[in-house]
Amino acid sequence: MNELGGYEFKELRVGMSKTYAKTITEADIVLFAAVSGDNNAIHTNEEFAATTIFKGRIAHGMLSASVISAALANKLPGPGAIYMSQNLRFRAPVRAGDTVRAIVTIKELNPEKYRVLLGTCCRVSNEVVIEGDALVALPASSRESR
Amino acid sequence: MNELGGYEFKELRVGMSKTYAKTITEADIVLFAAVSGDNNAIHTNEEFAATTIFKGRIAHGMLSASVISAALANKLPGPGAIYMSQNLRFRAPVRAGDTVRAIVTIKELNPEKYRVLLGTCCRVSNEVVIEGDALVALPASSRESR
Amino acid sequence: MNELGGYEFKELRVGMSKTYAKTITEADIVLFAAVSGDNNAIHTNEEFAATTIFKGRIAHGMLSASVISAALANKLPGPGAIYMSQNLRFRAPVRAGDTVRAIVTIKELNPEKYRVLLGTCCRVSNEVVIEGDALVALPASSRESR
Amino acid sequence: MNELGGYEFKELRVGMSKTYAKTITEADIVLFAAVSGDNNAIHTNEEFAATTIFKGRIAHGMLSASVISAALANKLPGPGAIYMSQNLRFRAPVRAGDTVRAIVTIKELNPEKYRVLLGTCCRVSNEVVIEGDALVALPASSRESR
Repeated sequence: MNELGGYEFKELRVGMSKTYAKTITEADIVLFAAVSGDNNAIHTNEEFAATTIFKGRIAHGMLSASVISAALANKLPGPGAIYMSQNLRFRAPVRAGDTVRAIVTIKELNPEKYRVLLGTCCRVSNEVVIEGDALVALPASSRESR
Repeated sequence: MNELGGYEFKELRVGMSKTYAKTITEADIVLFAAVSGDNNAIHTNEEFAATTIFKGRIAHGMLSASVISAALANKLPGPGAIYMSQNLRFRAPVRAGDTVRAIVTIKELNPEKYRVLLGTCCRVSNEVVIEGDALVALPASSRESR
Repeated sequence: MNELGGYEFKELRVGMSKTYAKTITEADIVLFAAVSGDNNAIHTNEEFAATTIFKGRIAHGMLSASVISAALANKLPGPGAIYMSQNLRFRAPVRAGDTVRAIVTIKELNPEKYRVLLGTCCRVSNEVVIEGDALVALPASSRESR
Repeated sequence: MNELGGYEFKELRVGMSKTYAKTITEADIVLFAAVSGDNNAIHTNEEFAATTIFKGRIAHGMLSASVISAALANKLPGPGAIYMSQNLRFRAPVRAGDTVRAIVTIKELNPEKYRVLLGTCCRVSNEVVIEGDALVALPASSRESR
């Protein structure tokens, strides 16, 4: 563990997996609209959203994706990790009340650069809602010995 | 224009570009921590953050990235667009007070599937802070005739 | 009344009681998680919370307790009062949608130090959810004459 | 560790201590006013607050105290702990920009009831701003064996 409680590089192994889960509430959708500036009707106008193929308001894709950020920062590799890149494929809509489980799994370790490639998958119940990969770098405090 | 003010597919051309910009405030960082569940010390603890290479608190990468969501939804292709995928490469940190300009530029049009590939770049002043691509699909209401 | 509309010390009597009530919404729980840094699963993950003895998400105890702060500051002794201490015993959970009534009742007056001891009780319907005591000091503007 | 990453009762020892720290921003004060209902001028009206002994706006005492809730829930005894009681003595004001460090230290263990008494102290730099004690109970998942 580093000083913040995150993993050190030498503790990481390909195949390690952790989950962070969060229920997406109406409040989260309102607040995400505020912080992003994305106040698209599909997220904020129930009357309009009911006329679309989604049959009602859905959460922003990037809101559900943000739970991946929490899984990386809170769980694996944990506090102190630096986000390098993220790929996201949005597979299915998420609605207020859904609990998004972000599952992050180590796919590759780069000991030269102290970087970690993780598969990142978000599920609601058994449905995959987002798929992709994240690349993170460990902080100096997690590099002391490999 | 479709009923929501978004572009119809036939109006789109490779090279079209639009910008949406938003200042990231202290409040946005606090609220993004809430909606994502990511309250990593680098975002919420100034004393810790001051000891890192960033020399102070930074915004969540996914918060800055969320301004891309607003550019796509508000500007190009505009209201009604459905987010299919997004790639993000985080190039430089963003801090409270920085104004993030998300610039989205059409790179490819797929008239078979009514899909649009856009380059997505976020800048603070002249510095690129995020680079990547987005793929969006136009809604039925924007597809009537090509 | 002092300049802010709070009671002057000489107007206070043992037994005086006031109530401030507030409905705890989903949004309040999301925002309290942000300001406190407490994003414990019992408050933010419905799937996990459903498996606990609480059978679903509950509000943070300190969120319900914060309504006492409002009762003291808004009602009795009112604006300008300085919070010296607070004891809290958490008796029962509070959920989104519950209206917390914070009832503050003067138990002792200390005219030497212009301090007021109040019993502080929070109820949801008829159930006591928090019990305790608060000690507050009146500001200079409320002390002019006893 | 229990299923959420919190300590099991048998892992706890008198004298164990953990810290959770958070910078209190302007946004935190605004949001705490919203969730608590405490919009006292000392927190929200700079012109008034400048005329008081505090010489400017201060954070709500219960806002700083809420960082204790995060230290208990995030660190020691960690996720799953149930808050039984909390005593608070407010020693000094906290202002926007201050980083509150909540330090929780085990004082007593009650193996009959799986309860833990912790000293709870909040500091800004070297100054104690809140002192008190917390009593928490461990969840069933942390009790399997003592």
